[in-house]
Amino acid sequence: MNTTNPVLEALYGRRSIRKFTDQPVSHDELTAILEAGRWAPSGLNNQPYRFLVIHEDDARVAPLAECTKYGHIVKAAKVLICIFLDKQAMYSEMKDHQGAGACTQNMMLAAHSLGLGTVWLGEIINQQDQALEALSLPAEKYELQVVLALGHPDQSGNSKRNELSEYMLEDF
Amino acid sequence: MNTTNPVLEALYGRRSIRKFTDQPVSHDELTAILEAGRWAPSGLNNQPYRFLVIHEDDARVAPLAECTKYGHIVKAAKVLICIFLDKQAMYSEMKDHQGAGACTQNMMLAAHSLGLGTVWLGEIINQQDQALEALSLPAEKYELQVVLALGHPDQSGNSKRNELSEYMLEDF
Repeated sequence: MNTTNPVLEALYGRRSIRKFTDQPVSHDELTAILEAGRWAPSGLNNQPYRFLVIHEDDARVAPLAECTKYGHIVKAAKVLICIFLDKQAMYSEMKDHQGAGACTQNMMLAAHSLGLGTVWLGEIINQQDQALEALSLPAEKYELQVVLALGHPDQSGNSKRNELSEYMLEDF
Repeated sequence: MNTTNPVLEALYGRRSIRKFTDQPVSHDELTAILEAGRWAPSGLNNQPYRFLVIHEDDARVAPLAECTKYGHIVKAAKVLICIFLDKQAMYSEMKDHQGAGACTQNMMLAAHSLGLGTVWLGEIINQQDQALEALSLPAEKYELQVVLALGHPDQSGNSKRNELSEYMLEDF
């Protein structure tokens, strides 16, 4: 679909980026991305999302990389944004998990709009306890949702989607 | 934060809209919104999202409105977009729920960019079986994630968020 609507362009054009250049991510860029996460919706406006920024020279990168088979991406990122739920602010597992996804998507779109690339690392949450330990965070307080790898793109994303008709339960 | 980046403007400026004018939502607008859902990321690119569009004159509006204490919004919407997970295409409860949230967020942002308003109805999924029955859909095949109420805004959204510092586990 051709469009001159920049928001639709971002929604249709964003792809996962797994390779990054050496160019740093600025503090202003990070702020703009985190702000997008802040403005995500949440059930009852509970705002249970918590963020931790880890730069490439942080000592926590190596132990975090050990928690996932995508450790090479954890190490390649210029910045990692770890997205958590604060368990005390949660009200519904399912709806808070959905909200964390909306929050993550907001950040990925913000990054894309700034010419940056991201990939949503989800496999790492299979090792929930190990990942929280790598970050010295208490498992009774936080649930890791996503590790977002961020940097300037060194590749073009290229993932495809099925046709819209395959998503539709009936004509509209 | 002031910005001339239209994507950031949408991310920071979108709010829930619960009151709608009589103006119809066009087929092209609906297509643009559903396309945004199609382009949402999913774990392993499994694309488990399924969509059902219900217009205001559809006989299913009334029984669906009975499934939630927000039935008045269900009835007030010009269009409802029901978002499901196809259980056969799921691979992880938590990650698929996150993905459904990203998908919903994409649709809400697309609607916002077209001057339309949405509200994410989540309370209705507490009545999962009843809602699927209202839609004559099999509970063994689909899990309702969200009912998105859509239309031209007849109010300004005004929800607030905490300061970014309250989201941050440490300085960045």
